[in-house]
Amino acid sequence: MTENTAIERENAQNEFMAEAQRILGQKGLVTDADDMEPWLTDWRGRYHGAARALAQPANTDELSGIVALCAQHGVPIVAQGGNSGMVGGATPDDSGTAILLSTRRMNDIAIDADAMTATCGAGAVLQTLHEAAEAQGMRFPLSLGGKGSATLGGLVATNAGGTQVLRHGVMRALVAGLEVVLASGEVLDLTSHLKKDNRGFDLKQMFIGSEGTLGIVSRVVVQLSHGIADRRVVIAGIASTQDARRLMQHCQGAMADALEGFEIMPQSCLDAVLAYIPDAQAPLDGQHPWYALMEFVADREGADALGEQVEKVLMDAFEAELVSDAVIAANETQAEAFWQLRETISPAERAKGPAMQHDISVPVSKMPEFIDAITESVLSAHPDHEVAAFGHLGDGNVHLHVIAPAGSDGPKWEQETGKKLSAHVYRSVTDWGGSISAEHGIGQDKLQTLRDTHDPVALSVMRKVKAALDPDGLLNPGKLV
Amino acid sequence: MTENTAIERENAQNEFMAEAQRILGQKGLVTDADDMEPWLTDWRGRYHGAARALAQPANTDELSGIVALCAQHGVPIVAQGGNSGMVGGATPDDSGTAILLSTRRMNDIAIDADAMTATCGAGAVLQTLHEAAEAQGMRFPLSLGGKGSATLGGLVATNAGGTQVLRHGVMRALVAGLEVVLASGEVLDLTSHLKKDNRGFDLKQMFIGSEGTLGIVSRVVVQLSHGIADRRVVIAGIASTQDARRLMQHCQGAMADALEGFEIMPQSCLDAVLAYIPDAQAPLDGQHPWYALMEFVADREGADALGEQVEKVLMDAFEAELVSDAVIAANETQAEAFWQLRETISPAERAKGPAMQHDISVPVSKMPEFIDAITESVLSAHPDHEVAAFGHLGDGNVHLHVIAPAGSDGPKWEQETGKKLSAHVYRSVTDWGGSISAEHGIGQDKLQTLRDTHDPVALSVMRKVKAALDPDGLLNPGKLV
Repeated sequence: MTENTAIERENAQNEFMAEAQRILGQKGLVTDADDMEPWLTDWRGRYHGAARALAQPANTDELSGIVALCAQHGVPIVAQGGNSGMVGGATPDDSGTAILLSTRRMNDIAIDADAMTATCGAGAVLQTLHEAAEAQGMRFPLSLGGKGSATLGGLVATNAGGTQVLRHGVMRALVAGLEVVLASGEVLDLTSHLKKDNRGFDLKQMFIGSEGTLGIVSRVVVQLSHGIADRRVVIAGIASTQDARRLMQHCQGAMADALEGFEIMPQSCLDAVLAYIPDAQAPLDGQHPWYALMEFVADREGADALGEQVEKVLMDAFEAELVSDAVIAANETQAEAFWQLRETISPAERAKGPAMQHDISVPVSKMPEFIDAITESVLSAHPDHEVAAFGHLGDGNVHLHVIAPAGSDGPKWEQETGKKLSAHVYRSVTDWGGSISAEHGIGQDKLQTLRDTHDPVALSVMRKVKAALDPDGLLNPGKLV
Repeated sequence: MTENTAIERENAQNEFMAEAQRILGQKGLVTDADDMEPWLTDWRGRYHGAARALAQPANTDELSGIVALCAQHGVPIVAQGGNSGMVGGATPDDSGTAILLSTRRMNDIAIDADAMTATCGAGAVLQTLHEAAEAQGMRFPLSLGGKGSATLGGLVATNAGGTQVLRHGVMRALVAGLEVVLASGEVLDLTSHLKKDNRGFDLKQMFIGSEGTLGIVSRVVVQLSHGIADRRVVIAGIASTQDARRLMQHCQGAMADALEGFEIMPQSCLDAVLAYIPDAQAPLDGQHPWYALMEFVADREGADALGEQVEKVLMDAFEAELVSDAVIAANETQAEAFWQLRETISPAERAKGPAMQHDISVPVSKMPEFIDAITESVLSAHPDHEVAAFGHLGDGNVHLHVIAPAGSDGPKWEQETGKKLSAHVYRSVTDWGGSISAEHGIGQDKLQTLRDTHDPVALSVMRKVKAALDPDGLLNPGKLV
């Protein structure tokens, strides 16, 4: 680089920063390294990046302005919501050229009780939305572990799932409208949230799950549901994954949509959880190969019959030999305790030592067979390892953890064994017609795996769409596509 | 054109046809003008086009082959399903350069009872799918007037709606997987139908509602529902559109998803229908400003309570003065007769004489106010006209017919008054945040209206995606984008 170009570059940088400051105001632009630091590492501490500044626009106008400025100067932008993603999708690379763009100041929530929708700034936090909806007798039926930090914009960008997908679907099914800032800074307003609109293909669907690579979500309209009138949470002991699926079909046949959650875990996961939570109680006597956690809800007025119906369904399941034992939570406290068992699996498994974690899916009907097959194939190659498969049976989504033998050196094991083992899992799930990422997305974590396993035609279409909407490749470079 | 280029062109055409014949076989290529004729006019007889040949591939391989050949020779392709669309979307232009591509030979249906899905060739007919699902105790919960001809591929390409959208959603919500032949002839296989898959943005959503402009749907996987155990069809007399919406909210509050259909029509539509159907009976005594047709279903086993619940809901509605009168169909025959009243509105209104028909939507909560406002504004400008607004209140989708004064000369009226009147309706609905096409699509019918009324940013994004996937503009040119 000649001295002149260095000066020119510095001038351009100064000009860029001055203009960014003008657009964003005092609170909106952070350049202090210490202040930026927390947002440059993903919450699991696996990815670390650098940024020239942290932009925190207060509204769509400011967001649009800073994106247009970045387009003009060729500056990459990494959008970030709650920084609680699982795949490093919101962490910039370490070049320090990018602007890290946080939506957290755009956090307003407006509920339209009549339309049963909530219009949220991209930075609104999921739990705040839950509370706002509940205050008006409604609910937003998507929940997940990171609800205290996850933002609506991030949930859209990653097409988040959670534990209530069985009935209500993933984020894609709950988004009624979107506002997106395009790579040029133009604002694409898709917030009209019509139930029926056939003016061409549905543009908002492109941005859901696009991880900030096609545009930056600035505003989200979500559909709300009626509040829950009653619920019953059940834990059942079952003999096999096949029986788990039969039990689920039995419950759906009798109760239809009233079955909102159907999670499974093996005895080993329950043991880990019971060891991890102080004073936790085993929900059933004895040992069972598998456990199903089921949630039945009623949101009709006067759903007095729910308790009786659930009892009958379980009785029938017992007679059909689908369950060996079952317990219905006696009250809300116990219901919460049952869910806590499920929600504690991840940390409890992590406490066992180094592990490779896989968030994968196969067609729902193949799930039982797949769990058995993948467990067997992993254990036959690594007999001293432990496999824990648990999760959302109803969605065909299993979290498959493979745990290193006790006393393993984590980094060494991951390099020598873990990576190969993961490659095997991802190859297998692809061969089964499944997905290497059921709900966590691709980010930077699975980018190479996606390239290795995905249909080249699909990858090529994704790249064409990316090139069409972000020709200069400034939106979240190095992620997803 | 010099003689040489004319000869070259003829040679190229001969070569193209010979190769097409080789790919498609004897049955697969129709060039006889009489044989092609029925497919070159849309079913309402408003659009007529020409084609160099009618291609009827028997499977995806042949479809892929002919599309690749067209790409190589720069030949446009117009895909056609049942030729029962409403906007001329499947009718080629009159240049005669295009291949008309019918999927009707690709009509296999395979039901996976365990997964509750049906995998259908693009040419499979909706009614055939209904019957196939019913034979196995399930159903495909999307239905519309043209079910005897509409194909699954066409339903996907137009993102079809119908009368059960309130609960089950439009086609977009029911498609579990797709196979699409791209402009290059490459086959994009998105049939894995995972309930959760976050490998990037959902490509299949781009093709739903794209009217054959981004790719040609060759195979569709749809989600089936449990068969209906019981249903109750109700007609209620109501005082206003506002009361109609209150009644709907009342029913949803009490019965939730059990309310599958909520259609409204004014007294004038009912009168037209009763005059049109021989021996038809008025469902209620006396006159009512509006009528609601409601369908409640139960798909749970042992839904013995449905009848009682519906009676209670209506009783409560009566006490709350939401309805002035109501009748529950006494049996299936009467239930069908009630639905026939609704389904006959279109032909009955058409029989009144020339009319402009508008398939429009606004946010559900604004629908009552919008119907009143648009009716008033049309009638104040055209006091001798008649306005009939009817349709899917629950979806915010109204079919608004404006009928010319008795004795009007149809074509003259349409030119002098009808077109201006439609422009007013489309401008109004756009101002209300609504859509100029709720369920019928854009095709060639509404292309100019879309350009005139739609957000330029949205149009520009649609064009970018189109250019990315079909750079030579060979897929259904002159439609949608």
